Amino acid sequence: MPEIMVFAAEGRTVEQKRGLVRDLTDAMVKNFGVPADSVTVQIVESPKDSKAKGGVLFSDR
Amino acid sequence: MPEIMVFAAEGRTVEQKRGLVRDLTDAMVKNFGVPADSVTVQIVESPKDSKAKGGVLFSDR
Amino acid sequence: MPEIMVFAAEGRTVEQKRGLVRDLTDAMVKNFGVPADSVTVQIVESPKDSKAKGGVLFSDR
Amino acid sequence: MPEIMVFAAEGRTVEQKRGLVRDLTDAMVKNFGVPADSVTVQIVESPKDSKAKGGVLFSDR
Amino acid sequence: MPEIMVFAAEGRTVEQKRGLVRDLTDAMVKNFGVPADSVTVQIVESPKDSKAKGGVLFSDR
Amino acid sequence: MPEIMVFAAEGRTVEQKRGLVRDLTDAMVKNFGVPADSVTVQIVESPKDSKAKGGVLFSDR
Repeated sequence: MPEIMVFAAEGRTVEQKRGLVRDLTDAMVKNFGVPADSVTVQIVESPKDSKAKGGVLFSDR
Repeated sequence: MPEIMVFAAEGRTVEQKRGLVRDLTDAMVKNFGVPADSVTVQIVESPKDSKAKGGVLFSDR
Repeated sequence: MPEIMVFAAEGRTVEQKRGLVRDLTDAMVKNFGVPADSVTVQIVESPKDSKAKGGVLFSDR
Repeated sequence: MPEIMVFAAEGRTVEQKRGLVRDLTDAMVKNFGVPADSVTVQIVESPKDSKAKGGVLFSDR
Repeated sequence: MPEIMVFAAEGRTVEQKRGLVRDLTDAMVKNFGVPADSVTVQIVESPKDSKAKGGVLFSDR
Repeated sequence: MPEIMVFAAEGRTVEQKRGLVRDLTDAMVKNFGVPADSVTVQIVESPKDSKAKGGVLFSDR
């Protein structure tokens, strides 16, 4: 606890994800004062035909 | 903002998703009075062996 | 099934929510071909000091 | 209603999921007093390079 | 890990929630073979005017 | 896009939340290469009688 869920379109590299989960966890430790080991992060990716902004699928942009 | 998450079993076509995200966004604009471009939609699909109703997997129905 | 989660800042009226859940459900029935009674909607509201865009709390805008 | 979302790393068998959704649903029926058929469960799995604890990806452990 | 989110309408007692989180955790330990201490549960409640089935708010039923 | 959801027990100050959303957004911009204005964060808080670890409510710890 706490748990961080990141909802994003598919397509990031493992390096990007590695950096993201480290920095998100650091942000929780710094601001909420929790131990790093209590923080979980899950990146929930969907394909671009399942993600939209302004009513338009990413795959149609 | 606001964000709409749709949790569903896998299996819809891109056409179905295209229509869904357009109509969901229209519903937000009409009822919550937000600009379309501020609305995001993510369809979070799981395979039928990871979705259940009444304690029974969709893949077992 | 499917389930729709709407994540938004607090502050809408019951009338706005009444219209939203009706229209969101209609969108699911029309596009995903599911019976209305199988669709659930939950509006998950947070206060403006717990919602942010561009790194800035809504309450600070 | 209610809806149960399980966020986990990929890798469980269908047998494990079959048992899990049955037991989670039984827990809801027993404790919240709802009919089994009103309970939905979705297991939202991410690959091990998209799930982290303590700032470290599962795939890096 | 894994994390369980329960989305429900407001109104359950602490006793109901106490029993639910115990039984949901037991189900995860039994079926996914994880230690109990790695399992988190969050019950995300919304008022009845923010939860709907079949396009109708719980508060209108 | 992307959207960050933080699931936590109630009890943090506005200052803690202000710092958290700023740092979480910075982490997304730095690692996923998205503009800050495309990143939304929602902190979904539950009371301590609705959050558990190891099958025990926070309010019972």
